[in-house]
Amino acid sequence: MPRDYFQRSEPIPYDPEAGPLDLAFRHYRPDEVVMGRRMEDHLRFAVCWWHNFVWEGGDPFGGHTFERPWFPADTMEMARHRADEAFEMFRLLGVPFYCFHDHDIRPEGETLAKSVARLDEMADYLGEKQDASGMRLLWGTANLFSNRRFMAGASTNPDPDVYAWCAATVKACLDATHRLGGANYVLWGGREGYETLLNTDLGRELDHMGAFLSKVVDYKHKIGFRGAILIEPKPQEPTKHQYDYDVATVHGFLRRFGLEDEVKVNIEQGHAILAGHSFEHEIALASALGIFGSIDMNRNDYQSGWDTDQFPNNVPEVALAYYEILRGGGFATGGTNFDAKLRRQSLDPGDLLWAHVGGMDVCARGLKAAAAMLEDGTLERLRAERYAKWEGSDLLERPLEAIAEEAVAKGIDPQPRSGRQEMLENIVNRFV
Amino acid sequence: MPRDYFQRSEPIPYDPEAGPLDLAFRHYRPDEVVMGRRMEDHLRFAVCWWHNFVWEGGDPFGGHTFERPWFPADTMEMARHRADEAFEMFRLLGVPFYCFHDHDIRPEGETLAKSVARLDEMADYLGEKQDASGMRLLWGTANLFSNRRFMAGASTNPDPDVYAWCAATVKACLDATHRLGGANYVLWGGREGYETLLNTDLGRELDHMGAFLSKVVDYKHKIGFRGAILIEPKPQEPTKHQYDYDVATVHGFLRRFGLEDEVKVNIEQGHAILAGHSFEHEIALASALGIFGSIDMNRNDYQSGWDTDQFPNNVPEVALAYYEILRGGGFATGGTNFDAKLRRQSLDPGDLLWAHVGGMDVCARGLKAAAAMLEDGTLERLRAERYAKWEGSDLLERPLEAIAEEAVAKGIDPQPRSGRQEMLENIVNRFV
Amino acid sequence: MPRDYFQRSEPIPYDPEAGPLDLAFRHYRPDEVVMGRRMEDHLRFAVCWWHNFVWEGGDPFGGHTFERPWFPADTMEMARHRADEAFEMFRLLGVPFYCFHDHDIRPEGETLAKSVARLDEMADYLGEKQDASGMRLLWGTANLFSNRRFMAGASTNPDPDVYAWCAATVKACLDATHRLGGANYVLWGGREGYETLLNTDLGRELDHMGAFLSKVVDYKHKIGFRGAILIEPKPQEPTKHQYDYDVATVHGFLRRFGLEDEVKVNIEQGHAILAGHSFEHEIALASALGIFGSIDMNRNDYQSGWDTDQFPNNVPEVALAYYEILRGGGFATGGTNFDAKLRRQSLDPGDLLWAHVGGMDVCARGLKAAAAMLEDGTLERLRAERYAKWEGSDLLERPLEAIAEEAVAKGIDPQPRSGRQEMLENIVNRFV
Amino acid sequence: MPRDYFQRSEPIPYDPEAGPLDLAFRHYRPDEVVMGRRMEDHLRFAVCWWHNFVWEGGDPFGGHTFERPWFPADTMEMARHRADEAFEMFRLLGVPFYCFHDHDIRPEGETLAKSVARLDEMADYLGEKQDASGMRLLWGTANLFSNRRFMAGASTNPDPDVYAWCAATVKACLDATHRLGGANYVLWGGREGYETLLNTDLGRELDHMGAFLSKVVDYKHKIGFRGAILIEPKPQEPTKHQYDYDVATVHGFLRRFGLEDEVKVNIEQGHAILAGHSFEHEIALASALGIFGSIDMNRNDYQSGWDTDQFPNNVPEVALAYYEILRGGGFATGGTNFDAKLRRQSLDPGDLLWAHVGGMDVCARGLKAAAAMLEDGTLERLRAERYAKWEGSDLLERPLEAIAEEAVAKGIDPQPRSGRQEMLENIVNRFV
Ligand SMILES: [Co+2]
Ligand SMILES: [Co+2]
Ligand SMILES: [Co+2]
Ligand SMILES: [Co+2]
Ligand SMILES: [Co+2]
Ligand SMILES: [Co+2]
Ligand SMILES: [Co+2]
Ligand SMILES: [Co+2]
Repeated sequence: MPRDYFQRSEPIPYDPEAGPLDLAFRHYRPDEVVMGRRMEDHLRFAVCWWHNFVWEGGDPFGGHTFERPWFPADTMEMARHRADEAFEMFRLLGVPFYCFHDHDIRPEGETLAKSVARLDEMADYLGEKQDASGMRLLWGTANLFSNRRFMAGASTNPDPDVYAWCAATVKACLDATHRLGGANYVLWGGREGYETLLNTDLGRELDHMGAFLSKVVDYKHKIGFRGAILIEPKPQEPTKHQYDYDVATVHGFLRRFGLEDEVKVNIEQGHAILAGHSFEHEIALASALGIFGSIDMNRNDYQSGWDTDQFPNNVPEVALAYYEILRGGGFATGGTNFDAKLRRQSLDPGDLLWAHVGGMDVCARGLKAAAAMLEDGTLERLRAERYAKWEGSDLLERPLEAIAEEAVAKGIDPQPRSGRQEMLENIVNRFV
Repeated sequence: MPRDYFQRSEPIPYDPEAGPLDLAFRHYRPDEVVMGRRMEDHLRFAVCWWHNFVWEGGDPFGGHTFERPWFPADTMEMARHRADEAFEMFRLLGVPFYCFHDHDIRPEGETLAKSVARLDEMADYLGEKQDASGMRLLWGTANLFSNRRFMAGASTNPDPDVYAWCAATVKACLDATHRLGGANYVLWGGREGYETLLNTDLGRELDHMGAFLSKVVDYKHKIGFRGAILIEPKPQEPTKHQYDYDVATVHGFLRRFGLEDEVKVNIEQGHAILAGHSFEHEIALASALGIFGSIDMNRNDYQSGWDTDQFPNNVPEVALAYYEILRGGGFATGGTNFDAKLRRQSLDPGDLLWAHVGGMDVCARGLKAAAAMLEDGTLERLRAERYAKWEGSDLLERPLEAIAEEAVAKGIDPQPRSGRQEMLENIVNRFV
Repeated sequence: MPRDYFQRSEPIPYDPEAGPLDLAFRHYRPDEVVMGRRMEDHLRFAVCWWHNFVWEGGDPFGGHTFERPWFPADTMEMARHRADEAFEMFRLLGVPFYCFHDHDIRPEGETLAKSVARLDEMADYLGEKQDASGMRLLWGTANLFSNRRFMAGASTNPDPDVYAWCAATVKACLDATHRLGGANYVLWGGREGYETLLNTDLGRELDHMGAFLSKVVDYKHKIGFRGAILIEPKPQEPTKHQYDYDVATVHGFLRRFGLEDEVKVNIEQGHAILAGHSFEHEIALASALGIFGSIDMNRNDYQSGWDTDQFPNNVPEVALAYYEILRGGGFATGGTNFDAKLRRQSLDPGDLLWAHVGGMDVCARGLKAAAAMLEDGTLERLRAERYAKWEGSDLLERPLEAIAEEAVAKGIDPQPRSGRQEMLENIVNRFV
Repeated sequence: MPRDYFQRSEPIPYDPEAGPLDLAFRHYRPDEVVMGRRMEDHLRFAVCWWHNFVWEGGDPFGGHTFERPWFPADTMEMARHRADEAFEMFRLLGVPFYCFHDHDIRPEGETLAKSVARLDEMADYLGEKQDASGMRLLWGTANLFSNRRFMAGASTNPDPDVYAWCAATVKACLDATHRLGGANYVLWGGREGYETLLNTDLGRELDHMGAFLSKVVDYKHKIGFRGAILIEPKPQEPTKHQYDYDVATVHGFLRRFGLEDEVKVNIEQGHAILAGHSFEHEIALASALGIFGSIDMNRNDYQSGWDTDQFPNNVPEVALAYYEILRGGGFATGGTNFDAKLRRQSLDPGDLLWAHVGGMDVCARGLKAAAAMLEDGTLERLRAERYAKWEGSDLLERPLEAIAEEAVAKGIDPQPRSGRQEMLENIVNRFV
């Protein structure tokens, strides 16, 4: 494999004065302190393996467009080369974290046993590279959706052998994640759903999925993995309906199986949009429900009905997302992963760098704006004032008929107050 | 008020041979037995008060189009006249049930106390009419969304006085529903949501809503109301986000407040669609989660992004809905309510009749098709076969590592089987 | 290649009494006469090559699921085998027409010249098979979207060499279509659009596309091709925006380049839905504008935001589509193509048959219902009555100020009449 | 009527240092020169009459929320008071333009003649206020959608008397607009469309609409009105389908009736989104087609499926819109109208001011960013380079077969080049 794919040795610098075609950070500076924390520690950026190093640029109407020297990684030799280039890109970008699926880092073996062995071998290789570079693993995960064996579901498959396959695979991936010091382990149920209700036993499949997740949590405790288990909600695509539809749905599912204190969510902007929500809604809801974990910072296009996984580029949107994250106390184990892919026409090595640099800068601006809004305090003060009449009220504790009796007796006649939405939006615009 | 608005005295007959412009049922025959139950008892049709007797035909870009002799019902005298015409229409249609909001049946009084008193007075009047006609109340409910006092929420309002107002109103409506022998009591939280997160304390509002619902359930038990308490999910409109987004969201909410055995859902086709689901999905999910209650059988237009509340007209869609209802055991306390409104250009008295007759016939065809599919048994046999390998499996009880170990040792290699979706859809088409 | 993939020798029979798992037509009978025309001649069914014989079952999150003996057709030998199986399937289904892209029927050569030569060779082979079987070609077309050279557009590519490539390819495909007696030639501009306006010269690209289409029309006349040139509108996917958005957009484009009498449209139900229209709307509009040509009878799922290309299964929807087609005089050169693909879990040879048999039966029912509605005449009589006041009016010829003067002088006060939508929908339901 | 509704006498100042709750412009300064033109002359802001002074805060699920002293304006006396307050608000905001419907500025009379007379009387009153204040009219228009007489269409109504009514009304509005020196006259066909195809003669209605528009254009020339006639596209709502769906549809319609040089478009961001487009797409397309006229700068919420008409608040989006406007040469007769309404919870007089000040500042930032991008020149340079190979090419002039022959002979093998979307988006982000 030819090396030096990116044709530069120096990491991308921070240089706000750089010219329009110069590759430089204009806003992200890892050591800059925001609300008492280094920017790097706030944002906890991660680069994903799959879109950057595995995806070849295909779409439903066309084949590959990218011609990377590391394609196809169908041998262990090539898998290692691919890893070398990945870590080289991490270095150039100056990100602290990365994420992977088993499928991304090793070619599948002819048997389950061989696939597991290859995963272990590559995990060792990545461990060495982590040690050498200081890179850390934000999360590992298992690809339980690409191979045709998963076409009818992973843990919800009608065939128990597939369920068993998934158990073996998740165990291996969790082991590897644990060994590599991963901060989280993610489950995205891309095939946990259905194409038609006509062939689906909805209740049974939900039960199987709940039992599976419980096992994963049990195993995590057995091996002493201290990272968080995260579910990544998505409403549909590739399925017509995905069981982990959105944050509220995942929350109900966790409660049903008594897992609401064990599992959290990894929220992706694009998936929020597909489910009919704003990104900040999903974050705020997860915080309110106590299950906020991590984010995938990649957007969809509002004019498209599918998951475009584009790099973020709208600072006001990103600022509102980080505002909810900061209001909730910031990331614990989670971080900002770019589950984002280049447009398939972005062929050049430099496009990989431009995309991440741009995304990181957008996030840095968003974070700083969010912090400034919080520190300014006007928004939170106005929010608190809006509910101020509840302070000292005992209404929540009294029975319906008592409240009713008093309300009638007093002859209350509540008058509405302005919600001041436009003023609040203008206040936000002072900061973004 | 001029009487005889509908200009006919004979109830609409059943006559499959009637001409294209003759008003007649071609499929609905209350006494016809389907799967061992009278069609009327299966379908449990209800006519709603609001769209038929209150709505004047306005939309966001235009004012009233309907000119009913009972507009406006701003006196108790007119409210009684309106009720007379409503019961006359029920008689002509031959429906067994109706539904109302407080707001529909009485003009609001100048004080809360007077509003409650008027509600009681009209409930007495309706009770007499029920006795005289044999009509029954499928459900009562409170309108906590039209008046400007509710603009920022009902039980989730920032003003505790509004919360108290709602408590008094729901108590009065539940009392009235109980007195009238209502089979259910419904809560639709049209203003329980937000326009902007910027002024909203999401966590607090959810807590208030949970406390409110708990009080309603407590009160129901105190007065011995035996009907079901139902929440009607809707994702948005009028709000940007409504807390009772869909069945899964309501389920999580109920679990969080320990109400999952106390409260069920009233599912509307149009709201399912707005939330990104099919109607049959929402029904099947509610059945699987044990919270299925009742349905609002009114559709949206797939090309519109708002709640058009149209009468059902697509038999295959309706058949799939009743198929899931029958699979789940049919209605207990619930029924088929038409929360449907005429198009605003449908000005004539006859349009009210045509719309309901058409809707009832579509439901009758759907029900018969659903029953035939169940009785034929092919679909359920194929569904069961698909999961047959799970019979006798102990995978769900075993820990992850044990399953993994065995899977690797055995060298399993699961092969996918056809999901046969097109064949299943063709089988359905034999019946619709 | 193993033969007898479909494992049956008898064509699918017409047998309305066949059991639920028997493969038989229950509604489609080619020789049955509907409104004075054989059903086969009304519907003019075509089977497409690409989804049935080329597509391997992949989606954006997973690889192939189908394992056909004719994969991959990367040699001319295999391409002929694939053709043999295709014609065998046509025979079993009893369809009169088929459709293809160049890309479907021959492997691409190393050079443009070789690709053209291979196309010619395979066209000869198909010609022989047509002669032997009586099959006809509904339309041919060029695949100008799969190869990476087209990623930034075909005739709208920034690179003139791609434009030239497309010219050569369309010429070759049009030649082949002409030679095979094709009834139409279709252009679907899957890459004629953009991913971002930031790198796009919209005006220039539209000019190039117009010039290209004009050339195609000129060439058609030169070679004496008598079939219709058809554009297939689609709003997006794979692009963010496709220039041939919908029927109205294509109409404006044709007018701009003076091609409105030369080119017609091939309307696909799924694409209509993606553009925010009903299928019947697009057909009715094309008829009103004089550019209706042909249809792709494959639907999308209303809950998905992408092009699912499913076989039709909703008779009421299909009936409304054929109603508009019959109102417009039926197909001239066009027909009913199934640009439909199996769900990727439908692995078996039999699924290919079930899907088409089901789709053809749905169309047959829709056609018969549409014909019955037209022959009944009630709908058209009511439509005409609604506009009856326009008969004899000279308003359209008079100037604004004259109409205004008279309106004011006369003191007109127009009163609305019921649009009777629910009654009309009920009338339709008598027939479907 | 109580005066001094806004409780301030000083116009809103420009003060970038103002505190978060101070009402001040932080970016809009009318006299600041951007690309050689005063900001006021670039942006040409207009305030609309309807949402600010007529709309009472109702939505489909609730009645009025606003309590303005000028409600209801059902007498000419009140109409004048309303106008006084409107001009007072214009003064406080410092906007140069306003817009109105006939319906907004005068109560309807009992007869058509009286309605016209009242319009004339109020136009005189507005003319005096214009003279006194220096305010100008950006456009006038007729409300042909609110009254029930228009429920089935205005110029497309099945009743010719409604057509005549519309002719008289548009004539009167155009006369008034002309007299007031209006820069444009707008037609928005809110009821020109259908609820169901079943009762609609699509072809006839389009013909009627085309004839009507031709008459309007003729009349404009007769009276010497020099402003532009503008159509405002919208895809749906209140109708299921509106004939003026989007820019491309309007363009085709204009071409069909030979009006493409006579009529331009007024593009609204929210309507662009409802039609599945970005705002900048619609502007760029209108520019490319030569029909760009003016804009309504109000957005929809991406999570809602209806027309929310919110004030703009996202600078990056607004910047891309002005970028396309500046690329096309800026406004000629058009301007930036806020067809935007307060959220219905924004009850206070101050909310009217905050909303406009915020919107104007967002536009000012967008304009400056757009100008800076154009002056920087990088984007346009890169765009031009992308198409550079077309310079000097004669491909567009040569026939298909000649291009094909040469392409084959030369053995061309075009290689794709990166579209660099992420880099371009990052360049934009340097300016917003
Ligand atoms: Co995604
Ligand atoms: Co993700
Ligand atoms: Co509804
Ligand atoms: Co409802
Ligand atoms: Co398609
Ligand atoms: Co197609
Ligand atoms: Co609008
Ligand atoms: Co507008």
